[in-house]
Amino acid sequence: MRITQYSDYSMRVLIYLHAKGEKRSTIQEIADAYDISKNHLMKVVNQLTQLGYVHAVRGKQGGITLARAAEQINIGVLLRETEQDLGLVECFRPGNTCTITPACRLTHVLREALDSFLAVLDQYTLADLVQPHHQPALARLLKIDAVQLETA
Amino acid sequence: MRITQYSDYSMRVLIYLHAKGEKRSTIQEIADAYDISKNHLMKVVNQLTQLGYVHAVRGKQGGITLARAAEQINIGVLLRETEQDLGLVECFRPGNTCTITPACRLTHVLREALDSFLAVLDQYTLADLVQPHHQPALARLLKIDAVQLETA
Repeated sequence: MRITQYSDYSMRVLIYLHAKGEKRSTIQEIADAYDISKNHLMKVVNQLTQLGYVHAVRGKQGGITLARAAEQINIGVLLRETEQDLGLVECFRPGNTCTITPACRLTHVLREALDSFLAVLDQYTLADLVQPHHQPALARLLKIDAVQLETA
Repeated sequence: MRITQYSDYSMRVLIYLHAKGEKRSTIQEIADAYDISKNHLMKVVNQLTQLGYVHAVRGKQGGITLARAAEQINIGVLLRETEQDLGLVECFRPGNTCTITPACRLTHVLREALDSFLAVLDQYTLADLVQPHHQPALARLLKIDAVQLETA
């Protein structure tokens, strides 16, 4: 059981932008900071922009910032939006052909487990993912320098 | 986010054997009942036998039955055993290279959500997956005839 790379990268982008504050970031610098594919990130950022999590400014001085306060980005809501497939097993999904569906309680049991999983995430926002005392370490790990942070 | 087909099929096999009672089943008949690949099922049954869920008898009159009472097969324990990869995101897995791991709380939040998911499954056994009033419908859907059930 895995969360898609897509959702994983979405969370990483938002954590980066949160650490960077109001200062704009480029996709290149985020790709460099995490050492991950810029091409993958472009798609991720595109969708985050469409979903209203990211604000993008075009042009030479352009870049991206968070479109909402970190406290207003709920992790459960985010995952439901980025994780397009929460169909744990065949009977959750369209085109289900499992013979026993009408007489089987497994669907309900797994649904209850998934609801419980998401309910935990619903308790957290982007702001909770980075505790204040970890903020300097995070900036260092992401190679966001102190000057950038102070001006943000 | 999906559970592997491997775990899905493991649960289907156990549900089938539970519905069949003490009478032996063949992999072929389970594959036919669910209309799924016999080859996939062979691997699944092999592992279920090794894990002590299924009892296999070789030979012409051979076949498989549950190795424990359905009430003693816990769904949370089963899933932990069949779902070899519960590494939701990169930082859960060996070889993690995510830069921010030391300063990021996402791991803890997702771990808490996964624990909550599994805790729900821990409340159920194989016996709970098929309610008594659904038993006849299940047998019908699996093409297990009444005579078979009665002698089981």
